[in-house]
Order: sequence, then C-alpha cells, then structure tokens
Amino acid sequence: MSDQEPERPLFRVEPWVVRETDLRLDRLAQTESVFALSNGHLGLRGNLDEGEPHGLPGTYLNSFYEARPLPSAEAAYGNPESGQTVINVTNGKIIRLLVDDEPLDVRYGRLHRHERVLDLRAGTLTRELEWTSPADRTVRVTSVRLVSLTQRAVAAISYEVEPVGDPVRVVVQSELVANEALPEGDGRDPRGTAALRAPLVGEEHMAGHNKVVLVHGTRVSGLRMAAGMAHEIEAPGRLSVDDESSEDVGRTTIATRLEPGQKLRIVKYVAYGWSGRRSRPALHDQVVGALAGARQTGFDGLLDEQRTYLDEFWRGADVEVDGDAELQQAARFGLFHILQAGARAERRLIPSKGLTGPGYDGHTFWDSETYVLPVLTYTQPDAAADALSWRHMTLPLACERARQLGLDGAAFPWRTIRGQECSGYWPAGTAAFHINADIADAVVRYVDATGNEQFEREVGLEIVVATARLWRSLGHHDVEGVFRIDGVTGPDEYSAIADNNIYTNLMARRNLQEAARMAMRHPDLADRLGVSSEEAASWRDAAAAMFIPYDDRLGVHPQSEGFTNHAPWDFEDTPPENYPLLLNYPYFDLYRKQVVKQADLVLALHLCDEAFTAEQKARDFEYYETLTVRDSSLSAQTQAVIAAEVGHLELAHDYLGETALVDLHDLNANTRDGLHIAALAGAWTGLVAGFGGMRARDGLLRFTPRLPGGISRLAFRMRYRDNRIKITVTADKARYELLEGPGLKLVHHATDLTLGDEPAEIAIPPLPPREPPTQPAGREPAPRRIDPRGHEVRTPS
Amino acid sequence: MSDQEPERPLFRVEPWVVRETDLRLDRLAQTESVFALSNGHLGLRGNLDEGEPHGLPGTYLNSFYEARPLPSAEAAYGNPESGQTVINVTNGKIIRLLVDDEPLDVRYGRLHRHERVLDLRAGTLTRELEWTSPADRTVRVTSVRLVSLTQRAVAAISYEVEPVGDPVRVVVQSELVANEALPEGDGRDPRGTAALRAPLVGEEHMAGHNKVVLVHGTRVSGLRMAAGMAHEIEAPGRLSVDDESSEDVGRTTIATRLEPGQKLRIVKYVAYGWSGRRSRPALHDQVVGALAGARQTGFDGLLDEQRTYLDEFWRGADVEVDGDAELQQAARFGLFHILQAGARAERRLIPSKGLTGPGYDGHTFWDSETYVLPVLTYTQPDAAADALSWRHMTLPLACERARQLGLDGAAFPWRTIRGQECSGYWPAGTAAFHINADIADAVVRYVDATGNEQFEREVGLEIVVATARLWRSLGHHDVEGVFRIDGVTGPDEYSAIADNNIYTNLMARRNLQEAARMAMRHPDLADRLGVSSEEAASWRDAAAAMFIPYDDRLGVHPQSEGFTNHAPWDFEDTPPENYPLLLNYPYFDLYRKQVVKQADLVLALHLCDEAFTAEQKARDFEYYETLTVRDSSLSAQTQAVIAAEVGHLELAHDYLGETALVDLHDLNANTRDGLHIAALAGAWTGLVAGFGGMRARDGLLRFTPRLPGGISRLAFRMRYRDNRIKITVTADKARYELLEGPGLKLVHHATDLTLGDEPAEIAIPPLPPREPPTQPAGREPAPRRIDPRGHEVRTPS
Repeated sequence: MSDQEPERPLFRVEPWVVRETDLRLDRLAQTESVFALSNGHLGLRGNLDEGEPHGLPGTYLNSFYEARPLPSAEAAYGNPESGQTVINVTNGKIIRLLVDDEPLDVRYGRLHRHERVLDLRAGTLTRELEWTSPADRTVRVTSVRLVSLTQRAVAAISYEVEPVGDPVRVVVQSELVANEALPEGDGRDPRGTAALRAPLVGEEHMAGHNKVVLVHGTRVSGLRMAAGMAHEIEAPGRLSVDDESSEDVGRTTIATRLEPGQKLRIVKYVAYGWSGRRSRPALHDQVVGALAGARQTGFDGLLDEQRTYLDEFWRGADVEVDGDAELQQAARFGLFHILQAGARAERRLIPSKGLTGPGYDGHTFWDSETYVLPVLTYTQPDAAADALSWRHMTLPLACERARQLGLDGAAFPWRTIRGQECSGYWPAGTAAFHINADIADAVVRYVDATGNEQFEREVGLEIVVATARLWRSLGHHDVEGVFRIDGVTGPDEYSAIADNNIYTNLMARRNLQEAARMAMRHPDLADRLGVSSEEAASWRDAAAAMFIPYDDRLGVHPQSEGFTNHAPWDFEDTPPENYPLLLNYPYFDLYRKQVVKQADLVLALHLCDEAFTAEQKARDFEYYETLTVRDSSLSAQTQAVIAAEVGHLELAHDYLGETALVDLHDLNANTRDGLHIAALAGAWTGLVAGFGGMRARDGLLRFTPRLPGGISRLAFRMRYRDNRIKITVTADKARYELLEGPGLKLVHHATDLTLGDEPAEIAIPPLPPREPPTQPAGREPAPRRIDPRGHEVRTPS
Repeated sequence: MSDQEPERPLFRVEPWVVRETDLRLDRLAQTESVFALSNGHLGLRGNLDEGEPHGLPGTYLNSFYEARPLPSAEAAYGNPESGQTVINVTNGKIIRLLVDDEPLDVRYGRLHRHERVLDLRAGTLTRELEWTSPADRTVRVTSVRLVSLTQRAVAAISYEVEPVGDPVRVVVQSELVANEALPEGDGRDPRGTAALRAPLVGEEHMAGHNKVVLVHGTRVSGLRMAAGMAHEIEAPGRLSVDDESSEDVGRTTIATRLEPGQKLRIVKYVAYGWSGRRSRPALHDQVVGALAGARQTGFDGLLDEQRTYLDEFWRGADVEVDGDAELQQAARFGLFHILQAGARAERRLIPSKGLTGPGYDGHTFWDSETYVLPVLTYTQPDAAADALSWRHMTLPLACERARQLGLDGAAFPWRTIRGQECSGYWPAGTAAFHINADIADAVVRYVDATGNEQFEREVGLEIVVATARLWRSLGHHDVEGVFRIDGVTGPDEYSAIADNNIYTNLMARRNLQEAARMAMRHPDLADRLGVSSEEAASWRDAAAAMFIPYDDRLGVHPQSEGFTNHAPWDFEDTPPENYPLLLNYPYFDLYRKQVVKQADLVLALHLCDEAFTAEQKARDFEYYETLTVRDSSLSAQTQAVIAAEVGHLELAHDYLGETALVDLHDLNANTRDGLHIAALAGAWTGLVAGFGGMRARDGLLRFTPRLPGGISRLAFRMRYRDNRIKITVTADKARYELLEGPGLKLVHHATDLTLGDEPAEIAIPPLPPREPPTQPAGREPAPRRIDPRGHEVRTPS
C-alpha cells in the first residue's frame, strides 16, 4: 500500500518454510510476530535468544491478564469500569552468551551470517548465526525453539555454540525474567495496547537441583503463575553450572572452554502454569512436573511429537496453490498460525492476535467466531469446539450483562479476556450485538460440520437459546407486524447505532430459527432451559417477520435502513496518507456518510447467501465495492469470497493476496503488535470459499469452483462429518476425492454428486463476462495479475 | 416528585422576597444555591458568614477555570483531550465570630432565631440570628451581603454583633481563604462536577494599611487572580485591629468588648480581579483600586445603587401572577437569578448554573442561547448582547473545531468555559450540532428585538454566516435533490446520531435563510467575509430543499427520521425510582426506543412555529406527551408553552409550576450543585410565551393570551425595539399598554393592532374544548389545580 520503491522482501518465498536470511533490526518487531511460536496456551514471540535487541519482548499465557480501570470523561450507566489487559509474563526464552566475556549482541562486532527459519511442518523456529566479537573471537550459534503442541505447558530450546578459528571461553546464562521493561508505545493509535509496567508481584523463587522456579501473582486480577526451567548440557570439557534466583530473575550459568571443532549444547526446557484458584505450592509442583515430563520425552522426542501432530493437521488442512508461490506460502503460514492460536487453547479464548503480541490488549472479538473458527471447524474441529466451550463457560457473565442492559438471554462481550465486557466505547462495542449471532452461528456451523451431538447438548443448545432470547428481546414488532432491530452496530465500524442492519437482522433470523430447531431436537434439554413451545414459536415468528430493507430506487440493499440516503464519502479529496480514516476523521463524520470500513452487507452475502439472489449479490457487491476502504484487515477475505462468487476472479485474487500477506508483508504496518489471526484465516477462506466456492449447511457441502488466471491449480483438503476430502481445481474442471470416511453428498455448481471411494471429476461451467467494479480512489487492492511478459507482478510490501 | 408526606416548605411564599425562617442543616447546600448572589462576573454562594457548617463553599469568577485531562478508554480522532472546570476561588465571605472565645457555630449552643432573606428588589441577602454560646453568652448578629451590580469587581458585607443580657468579649476574624477543602462528591452521578483539590498556587500575599490582598495562579490553564479586602469598623469602645496574611489565608482580626445595647459593626469590602495576561502587580493594583472605589461609595451607597439598578430592571421585566402566589414568587426569583447570571458577565459566558455552584463543571451549553437569552433579550437586552459577543470572541476556536471535524464555518462547543470543546462523549456533544443554529437564532432574535444594527454588523453577521456555512457543509442533497442532515443529535438526549432531526433541520433552515438575508443587508461586510452571491444562493437553495420527515401513518412528525418506527419505551414496567432513566438504563437502550428526555420536536413547535399548522401542533404535542419523561429540567417550560398554545391550559400551568419551582422546591434533588438557570428562565417564558402566547419575528410581536383556571390575572412587561410595553391578561380580555417608546404594531390572536399612547383592551376568543393528553405512567406533572374547597393544592416539594 506504499508508494515507495518496493524493498527487498524480508522472507524468502518457499512452500513450507518462512526463511529470513538477513537480520533487519528495523523490522525486528514484525519478525518477532511472524516467528512467534504458540500452542494456544503458551505463546513466545520470536525474540532473539539473547533477549536484546528486541522489538517487543513477549511471552503470553492464554487468559493470564491484569485488570485495569477503564477511564471515561463522562460516566454512564452500563459502561464497564474495568478492563483486562494481557500481561507479558516471565520470559523463559532468554539464553545470553558471553564470548570471552563479551556478550553476544548482534548490534556490535560483525555478524557474518544470520538466518531464521520457521518450519511449518516441523513446528520449530531455527536460528543460525556466525558472529565475531569486537575482540575478534568468532562463534557459530544454532538454536532450535519449539512450543510443544503435545505438552501444552512446555517450550524447549536447543542451543549450540562452537568457536570458529580460535578457542573461546563461553559463558551461557539461561534465564527466567519477570517484569521485563517494555518499550514505550506512542499511545496515539487507538488500536494499540495499554502496556502495563511491572505487572507481576513475586511470591516465590527457587533455584537448585537443576531447576529454577519463579512464582508470581497479579495485583488486581488475582491470578498466579509459575515458570520453571531445567537444562540438559552436553559439553566436551570441564564445565561449571550454577543455578540462582531472585524475585524477578532465575538464572542458570554454564561456563566452559571450547576449542575449534568442539560444541557446547544446551537443551533448555521451560514450563508454565497459571491459575486463579490453585495455591502457590500447587503451581510450583505443576511446572516442576511438566519439566520432568519434558525431560523424559527429551528434545528429540518433543521434535518427533511436534512433527507427528503437524503431519496429522496438514493431512486434513493443507492447500496447494500452483501459479502463485507467494500465496502458496502465505496460505500455509496462515494455517500454521491459526492452528497455533487454537490447537491447545482448551476452553480458553482465541485472541485476535493469538498469543503473538499484545495488540488489542490480548482481547478476543467476534472475528474469532466469524473468521477463525470456520477454518478450524473444517480442519481441526476439536479446537473449534474448545473455543466455543470457552464461550459457554462465560455464559453466566453474558447473561448477567444482558440483564444489566435490560435484555433477556445472553449478551456476549464485544471484547474480553475473561468474559466481562471490556469495551470502553459502547457505540462500537456493546451496540455491536451481532457478535451474539456470530457465536451462535459458529455453534451451528460446528455442529453441522461434525454432527457432534454431545457438543450440541452440552454446549451448543444453551448458547443458541440464550442468544435467541437476546434477539427476541432486542427486536420488536412494529405496528405493521414487521420485526425490527433498531439502534445497533453492524460489522462495519464506520457506521454505528443504525436501524435494521441487514447483516445483523439476517444473522439474528438464523439464530432464532436454529434455536427453535435445536430446541425441537432436544426437548428434554429445552425443557430444562425453560423453552416452551410458545417461546420457540415466538422465535420462529420473529424470524419470519424480520425486516430486510431494500432500496428500490438504486436496486441494492442498504447496509442498514437509510444508509443509501447518506452522502457518499468524498473519496476524491481524501489523500492516501489519511488512511486508515479513523485516525484522521471523527467517528461522527464516518458514521453519517456512505463509507465502509469492512465488509458488512457483503459479509451477509457470504454468510447468509440463501437470502440473496445471484443478481442481487452481483449488484450489491458492486455497489459496496465503490464504498469500501478496507481500513480493517477483516475485509479483504470476504470481498475475495464474494468477488469470486459473482465472477470477478482477478479481483478476488487481489483481495486474497491482501489478506494472506497482511503479516508477511506487514501491509498494515502494525504486525509488530501481533499477527492478524483472522486475516490470516482469510487465506484459507478465500481459497476454499472463494475459488472453491465452498458453502456448507444442513449436512450438505456445495462447491462452485473457479480459478483466476494467476492460479493454475488449487487443491484443498477439509473435514466434513466423518469424511476427509480433497478437492482439486484447475481451469476447466474440478476433482472431488474422498480421503477417508463413509462418503457424502455434495453439489458442484448445479450438479448433485455422491462422493464415495471413486473420485469424481466434473467440468466447470463457463463464466459469463462481467465488467469489474471500481473501488474508492487509491483503495484498489494491489494487483496479482500476470504482466504481459509472463512475470508475476509482486504485491508491493 | 416524591411520594413522601410533603414536608414544611423551606421558604415562605411572599411576593418579593425569599425568606427562610428556620435553618435546616440538612438543606444547607440547597439554600446556598438559592441564596447565591452574583452579578455575572463574581458569584458567592449563600454560605453562612462564619464559613461553617456549609453544604458546599463556593466563590466563582466567570471564566476562571482550571484545565484537566479528559480521560477516555478508547481514544479517537477529534475527541477533546482537555477539559475545563470552574474553580472555587478565594473565599472573601468569611467573617468568623468568637464570643468570649467560643466560636459562633450554629451546630453548638442554642440558636433562638435564624432568618435569612433574599430581597429581589434590594439585591441583598440579609441574615439575622440570636444565639447563646455553650458558655451561656447570647449575641444577636445581623449581616447584609451584596454582590454589586454596579461595581462588578465588588462584594460587600455589613456585619453587626450585639450582646443580649450579659456583656461579651467579641473577636471578629474577617478572612480571605484560598484552596478551601471541598466535601467529597460521590462521583457517581454523571451530571456532577469534577472537584479540583487545591487548584490555586500562591503568588503573593500582603496585609497592612487596612488592606489584605492574596494573588494566586492556576497550574495548567495559566490564569491569575487577586482577591482583596478592606474594612470599616464602628465600635463603641476600645478596639484592636490586626491584619495578617499567608499564602492561602488573609485575616483581619478585630477584638472589642460590648455591653448590652452596644454594637460592633463591620463593613467588609471584597474585590476580585483575574486575567490570563495581566501581571501580578497589575492585578494587585486592580483589586486595591476596586476596594478604594467601593469605600468611596460606602455600604449605603452600594445599597442605593443596587436598588436603583434593580428598579430599572423590574420596570421592564416584572411579571404579576394573581391567583398562584407560589408561582408569583418563583417567577420573580427566576428573573432575579437570570439577571444575576447575565447582568455584568460582559463578554463572558452564562454557565448553566450561573455562578451559583460548580454543577456541570461551570460549563455553558445550548441552554444559554435557547432558554436564558430570550428572557434577557426582552428584559435586559444588553446582557443578551454581551453573552453573544462572548460567543463571537470564541469564533476563531469554533472555526478551528469545524476544520478539525472536516466542516466549513464554525462548530461551537457543546460545553465549554473558554470556548474549546470540553465534551468527552461525542454522541451527545459534538454531534449535537443544533447548538450552532441555536446561537445564530439568538443573534437573530436579539437583532429583531432591538434593531441594533451596530451589533448585527460587529457581532451578528459573522456568527450567522459561519454557522450557515457549517450547515451547508454538514448537510447534502440526495439523489432526489432533498437536503438532508444525517447523523446528528437533537435536543432530546435520549436519542442520538439520528438522520434528519426535525428541530435541527428547521433551525438549520432558518440559520441558512437568515444568513442569506443578513448578508444581503450588509453587502460590504458580506463581501469582506467572502460571501458571494453564489454562496448565499446555495444557502437559500439548501433551506428550500430541507427535508422535514412526516409519518403519514400516524399523522405526526417523527422527532427524527424513523423515530416513530422504534419500540415505545416500556413505561409501565419502569418503576418511579428508576428515573432519571440515564442513571438506570444504558444509552444504547434509550437511544433505540421511543422515549424522550426533553422537548425536542415540541421545542420545534415553539421556536419554529411557522413550520406547523395548528392541527399538526396539537397532534404532535399530544403524541410526544405520551413519550416525554422530563428527565431534563429544560423540558417543562417548552411543554408549558405548547400546552398553552394548543389549548391544554391546566397542563401548561402544571408544567409552569415545575419549571419555576425547580430550585425553590429542589425538585431534581440537585439544587445543591447550583441553580437551574435555564429552567428558572422558563417561569418567564411559560408565562409570557405560554399564557401570553408571545411570539416575535421580523419586527412583529404576536400574542395569543389565555389563562388557566388557577391564574386570575397575569401582567408582564417586556421591551421590543425602542418600546417598553405591559400586557395584562384576565380570563376574558387582554390589555396592551405602551409604557415608553414610539409605539408598535402587534397582533392579538387574529387581530392586528397598532399600539400607541392609548392602551388597547381586546376580548380573548373562547377556547374549543380538547381532551387533555396523557404522560408516561408516573411522569405526570404535579397538579396546580384548585381543590373543591378553593384551597390551592401545593406542589409537593
């Protein structure tokens, strides 16, 4: 999105790894996010082993946060008074190296070689460097870091040093550091985070018996955590090892002398535990136990488990993209991070940045259910179930919030870590009630994809009923019997507090319908939840009477009632540097004009596709294209999906590039704060729901595959019910293959298929030509088209 | 508004004074507001002379404030980051008395008598008490306090002590005290104030030569103030007098011995000055000079000047109400405080509490121009001109704010002291653009009422042009050529960010029209302001195309587009203790339902009466009656005016009582924070525009007088152009009388009159009966009707 000369890309384009061959200190914070390792429970940013220099040190435990007051200039009933902010917990990654007493610091001396590789199949971050100290001693260092996907409390680092040329005395200080100093933010970007200074209060520190443990608590939120480390050391000669600890620092110091050809190898096991209830000794023991388990497995064992886990994941999730190598890499990179965010979260949230950075205070939003869970639902369904089970756990808080707001059922928070509403700006927080339908829809989607009846009974029904009750009390029948939902905020954050937002009304309609259906399927449970036939009937009635406004004059759906009467934004007079608009224009002005931050009506075209005719979709998409500025990273993937559906395949390809490369190319210049997990999910969604045209509902998978010129072949795998299938699309045909499972019915364009052991190969109907739509001046996506000489034109980073 | 047994009223009902005969310590803060003295420049709350006990000590200088950060949970472009809060400045009221070394404190010993009298013709607060100390010494104390309307820097207190029964030794400590401790607020009511602790930084203190002066500055806002005092002492015997000062305290100590029958009398002169620019010595000299001037005039001279000033005011402003003695008193009380708020403000604001308390942080809002200035315009027009000149002084800030918001012209602040926007909640602040039309309309009204062309040229034109430019850029023509103003907030604070609020659109229409007319009247100045014929034409065009929505189905005007589609508020299930609703329901819920905090469409019926037919007014009024809860004290007066116009005279009388008695009866339980100046103005407005039916426009006064059963005779005086007139209304006729001036045309109901030296007496046409409307359950105004035995039923306080 920049006019500057495209600079040399940070990462090499390779199918299964993300490789950085030069260390760029000015991009350190971005690479720390890209190279973050996580299992959904524990997350380590890709900080250098020696801790410094850093962009932003970061170690996170899912749901470990501090509470802080939410200030307001004018208090009002119902505004939350307390917020929650993710904490940078005890850093267990640090391994400092002294070479003849000079610290290894890449800012000094000479760095001959520095390569980092994130391996998407191994689940490791590898680093190799060769460095000459200011005193002219040269060492080669190799580290391999992993956050275990199989032992969720555990991370491990293999660290090797060898001298080059001359013998050296080396001292390795392997540390646990709490309350690290964080760089000051400029505090002006409202999307940023409120850094908390020294949030941890020491409760215990212990060093000895090849173990160091630190236990800390938070001041306000009442949480306690423990971090521990243990080491295995291989050294050729004499060795001194010393463990020590103080309140905020644990340290194991290893000193030896190495001749050229000799190596010091250290394996550092780090374990974490936290709880809001368990005692200090219990947590201490928990990390000591996890360390023992990890040592028992050993580093090679952990590597093996990691690869096995990932092999299994890729078998049901991999996408192959021929013709666009960048997109191929980005799609796998995205899937890898989606998995990392959700794999072992286990009844905890999936924050919008995963555990890769402190952006958005570590909160989860609607994008977890709307953008991330669909990918997990069809590739790693247990992780989707876990995330929804977390929502279920917070249902009492959501019901309490609904009562506070004068509503029935549950009102889930717009942003939260623990379940309480943490949004300090209600027009774009509390008023965005669609999150409740988004959560219900994620339940319905998961149940449809898996047929998991136990989940439906134990988790799903209660969520869908509570949210249906919310909608029933939030809307009302007007004097003509039309059911209206007034004064709410839809997905587009450049509008707020509008009447009858179509996305909201359609999603609420489905929520009401599905609640009635689900209650009918489980009369015993429905009865226990107090759902009477009358109540279910009132849901069906409200759904049937739901108001969906339409602008006859323009022949398009207004995003909300009256939207198409508003003045269009003056795009011509909006200079490029004024994007994102929210940083340069007041909300009052954005709200009152036709300007769309992110797909809203167009998201309805995707998720509620049954409510629109093909012609309406095409007209609506083209209308909103002229208004959508994509100041949200959530937008491009939905535009990709609908552009593909209505036949603008090249445009869809462009949007897909934007969502997939958001972090590898740092397109929004804020990857430093963490990855855009939902946007990364869009790579899969854009390929599968866009070019694959996949839609699923009521036990039926439908596909309308079609490729743009720049992709010669697309293959993707997904799970549905008990099947694992593979779909391969080329320019003129699609091949459907059952990899595993009992088989299923599906639809290819207008053709019904039954997929059994025999693959099916079917032609793709030709696409009638359609004039491409236009975007606001300067907001066209970067093109991915092939230039006339056949070279792919690179998206500027 | 309370269900409890009506308690004995605090104040006696008398036509020209407000008398308190018992000191109620639990109502001290309310009486301090009621007994506040002010001239618009300097304000003293009615604190007891001896300083304690107090509800809330308060001494205010118009525009003397401190800046403070405006916190926000989520920052956004255009939100103000700094607020302004009025400061309790150096207290010069304090006169402590020691009786044989025991301090006079009404909480101890025995208080035999305590009477305070606010005299509305003398402009004084008188206090008489007789008290026996715990050591059984009895004294009689009489004080008379005034804030001079003729010497604006000056307050004066005459203080007399005499022993009763036994001789006593008395010590009087007359003080200046800066940085008084203020009671802690509970901080939960968003309408409250942010008290600033110790806001003043000492710069100089001086005592000697019968003068004490303290000079202080503020920390952030960069203002400086000086307070000084001097004394005249009359004593029968030996006397010691001692002046002293320290940073925050100046003290003159007077000691003597009094025999029964002897008196000590002290006259204390206090003077204040402040500036953002002038030096410490300059301010010091200014207060010393003011003290010298006041001593030259003497206390009796100040009393004489005060009465002369007020006699002249009442000659053009007095209202007589026969049949409702409470209302008679309240109307004069209201006019007195309106005068006090504006008389000598002299190019400074009129805060919503005047200078009677710290409520709303001392800010001015739209109610100054909409509710207070109309009263001043027709009774003390120079004060109205001064207040508008203050707005004119802030025009550069308003233009800068408009630019920040991406708009042309001027965007005046929703709330401010110095001119910068201080609202921290933009949906009910910045979005309430109607304030700009309200200011322009106040200009137009003043010019119409006075014909002051110099004002029009020097002040008026620039305001009206700058606000017209705002509207032209805020609205837009839709594809059908209709001019729409979307996404703004009208007067009703239980709605926000709506499209085409009728009040706003009608006021904007007038603003545009009047700007075009005024520019045409002054082509030279218009040219200097860059107003081309094309620009003026674009104003007229936009005005002519202004959208005024109408609900054909219900036959009423929706307050804003779509309003009448919203769910009605569930009044039946709203218990009385849940009012005001804003303290018990979230804004999101209030905004999306049909519930009206304060007259909005009904205010348009009053101020834009030319836009509605009589039948529309009646239907609209009755519709909004069912929805209006009057959680704002601004509402009742407008409902009184329109109730009277459409023929609900008894209801109008009830509303009039509510607005007039808001502070004397503490109807909103927050008179402690200061008087409701705009609601008090409503007493005059309800009588004159309601029962008098007065409307003025384009040089023509119109009246449609009609009285309710409970008022047998109403007489009011007003100024219009160079005339002073008196209108006397009885049940069946009205008498119009020219007291002074060249005469004028006017209209009585449908009859045109030319009023010259001969009074005119004309019959009032009979009123067709009309069913009274209903209000939300429990929100009916307290009735003022006569009960069957002919006793007036008192409004419960």
